[in-house]
Amino acid sequence: MTPDPLNRLVAQLAKLPGIGEKTAQRLAFHILRSPGEYASELSQAIREVKEKVHLCVRCFSLTDTETCGFCRDHRRDERVLCVVETFADLMALERTREFKGRYHVLHGVLSPLEGVGPDQLRIKELLERLTDSQVEELILATNPDVEGEATALYLTRLLKPMGLRLTRIAQGLPMGGDLEYADQATLAKALSARRDL
Amino acid sequence: MTPDPLNRLVAQLAKLPGIGEKTAQRLAFHILRSPGEYASELSQAIREVKEKVHLCVRCFSLTDTETCGFCRDHRRDERVLCVVETFADLMALERTREFKGRYHVLHGVLSPLEGVGPDQLRIKELLERLTDSQVEELILATNPDVEGEATALYLTRLLKPMGLRLTRIAQGLPMGGDLEYADQATLAKALSARRDL
Repeated sequence: MTPDPLNRLVAQLAKLPGIGEKTAQRLAFHILRSPGEYASELSQAIREVKEKVHLCVRCFSLTDTETCGFCRDHRRDERVLCVVETFADLMALERTREFKGRYHVLHGVLSPLEGVGPDQLRIKELLERLTDSQVEELILATNPDVEGEATALYLTRLLKPMGLRLTRIAQGLPMGGDLEYADQATLAKALSARRDL
Repeated sequence: MTPDPLNRLVAQLAKLPGIGEKTAQRLAFHILRSPGEYASELSQAIREVKEKVHLCVRCFSLTDTETCGFCRDHRRDERVLCVVETFADLMALERTREFKGRYHVLHGVLSPLEGVGPDQLRIKELLERLTDSQVEELILATNPDVEGEATALYLTRLLKPMGLRLTRIAQGLPMGGDLEYADQATLAKALSARRDL
């Protein structure tokens, strides 16, 4: 009995991650109640993001030009390359304002269970990029979980012969953390990776 | 540094209720990763819902035809009219499959604090609809909260002189509820509205 266009919108919204049937319905009602400009702006933004945003040909981050802003920025250090899983991870690193080198986005992690091997990631492109480059240090900034660790290990074995300095982002207690509530694996890592003062 | 079309989409998505900056970003990445058809289908669904869905001229529910399916369905009982706040409430009632009468959607509740008076609701249209109609019973199905109660009271005073049977949906403990954890107001209502067995 509900109008078809409304059902179609609810069905499409419910495909988004973390959006269930009920939330999709609430969002659809909101769009319906909003001024017409909002619906057309949102609709256009969705179309344009697919049409205009693509991968940077060099580092595989997201861009609407041929090479991304990170690759074009000459103030960034060519000698340090940070390897991340996703563009979201890249953005998280950027927010720290701590890193002024270049990036390389793998677009995933090794995951045999999900059929993701080295060929599904941008590893071949990373190797190509490292030949004839000024890169001196490669920071492996994959997530500190099973698959991220496995990917970092794979890359370490693959790249060690190239004579680069390979580093891994530190693991330990998060800032503001509490030893009492830390999980065993984190605390064990914090202990074994202790620094001299 | 993030591409403009992506920023625009995140900004538009973050305007949706319950969607913050982080969630908007996650949704935008999902749209970007999905096949092109999804983005164009979602984009079109948003445009169409605004273009095609409007209020039924009779009961003010949502429809993409002139009168809605509820008003056109001749099997529904013309003699019972259920007044609800929103189309979402109407759908909740429909899901029970208990009600086979007609609806009237007010599109809000009386709320002096938010500047919503009787003129902002579809009350005039309700009165027009009741003259020369076969309606014998009017069920006031506004929410059992302060504003819903006030709206029901206002409608009761307004419609009582018309000689209709006016009813209010029951209030009491919800099914599967627990006396121990019920709030005082609900329990008091359940007690005062007790039924003979």
